[in-house]
Amino acid sequence: MDENKFDTSGLNTVKRLPKRGHYDKETIFNILDRHFLCHLAWEVDGQPFIIPTAYGRKEETLYVHGSSKSRMLSALADGRPLSLVVTQFDGLVLARSAFHHSINYQSVILFGHAHEVEGDEKYEALKIVSDNIIHGRWDEVRLPTPIELKATMALAITIDTASAKIRTGPPVDDDEDYDLPLWAGVLPAKLIYETPIPDPKLKMEIEVSESVLFKMNPSR
Amino acid sequence: MDENKFDTSGLNTVKRLPKRGHYDKETIFNILDRHFLCHLAWEVDGQPFIIPTAYGRKEETLYVHGSSKSRMLSALADGRPLSLVVTQFDGLVLARSAFHHSINYQSVILFGHAHEVEGDEKYEALKIVSDNIIHGRWDEVRLPTPIELKATMALAITIDTASAKIRTGPPVDDDEDYDLPLWAGVLPAKLIYETPIPDPKLKMEIEVSESVLFKMNPSR
Repeated sequence: MDENKFDTSGLNTVKRLPKRGHYDKETIFNILDRHFLCHLAWEVDGQPFIIPTAYGRKEETLYVHGSSKSRMLSALADGRPLSLVVTQFDGLVLARSAFHHSINYQSVILFGHAHEVEGDEKYEALKIVSDNIIHGRWDEVRLPTPIELKATMALAITIDTASAKIRTGPPVDDDEDYDLPLWAGVLPAKLIYETPIPDPKLKMEIEVSESVLFKMNPSR
Repeated sequence: MDENKFDTSGLNTVKRLPKRGHYDKETIFNILDRHFLCHLAWEVDGQPFIIPTAYGRKEETLYVHGSSKSRMLSALADGRPLSLVVTQFDGLVLARSAFHHSINYQSVILFGHAHEVEGDEKYEALKIVSDNIIHGRWDEVRLPTPIELKATMALAITIDTASAKIRTGPPVDDDEDYDLPLWAGVLPAKLIYETPIPDPKLKMEIEVSESVLFKMNPSR
């Protein structure tokens, strides 16, 4: 038992290309903390469901939220097994052979189960998700009323086990293909934020707020 | 029955915010054809699994591929129910209240089942996936050998039903919040491709190939 790593089991062990697998919490949490959009899957009577949704992390718990009427949240609140993936697409790996084409990426796959949170933990969960989407926005805006809180549901996801999978670097071709007169390399990709578009209903001249500027350029 | 639309059922009907739901094939296929990365979910004995993977479309069939040893492909090849999502994140919708924050996106959720394809259809499936990732690359590279084909598995996914969900435009706040002295609007996001990085093992001066230039700038 190493508390800095997730135990490996049949569920989370990276079997294909095991060198790409990582189980240490630092690597896994770093990937989770760079993103806010995950895909979440669960099943009902053998039928898998999957949905994109926002999340936030506090220590070893992930929080998701949505409408109190959400079918997803209601199904998951009973603690049934869930799987959650965060995928960062970093670029196309363009080899000399079709077979050795690949993708550079960092992904986390985790298995866990959820329960509904209420009261103070619910309020904190909503702030954690908000801060993970756009840090500082929570402190700028009009905060939830009791009615809005009632219309919102928050789930805490306990991570049973997790793994990260990472591929970086150039293509790896068969020896005899390196002589082919064909360009090979990586076409890098990334998500960028563009110039903010003011709400047409802004009633006065208001400058773009700090949270938005920080989201556009975290290093400023 | 309208052959230009997917039938709505309990599975694919958009219940939350139904105005965002679309069932016509044109809208759904347009979203699918702008992307190549999906998240695919299936279940084994009540345990959901989910994985990011590449796909390509031909008419009403999606193709995915991977290693012949892939646990995912082997599980799915028996035709068990699957769910597949493609998500395009377009920006953060920044309202004046925490509650009315949202995300602009276009997503497709589909339900279906898969079967393995062999022979000519397998070869065509691999080309379709490749062309969907980077159009024209297939015609530039060294094509698969019989041994490589044997190490690769391709699945055809039959779409049982599908829906798209789209949100665009500015935030929608409560009337009384429009007077708040707080910036509101949309922070647009998009995926971009950056300057190609040549493989350090390129043996000669070779120009970046057409498929890569086209991927970087489809409108040129």
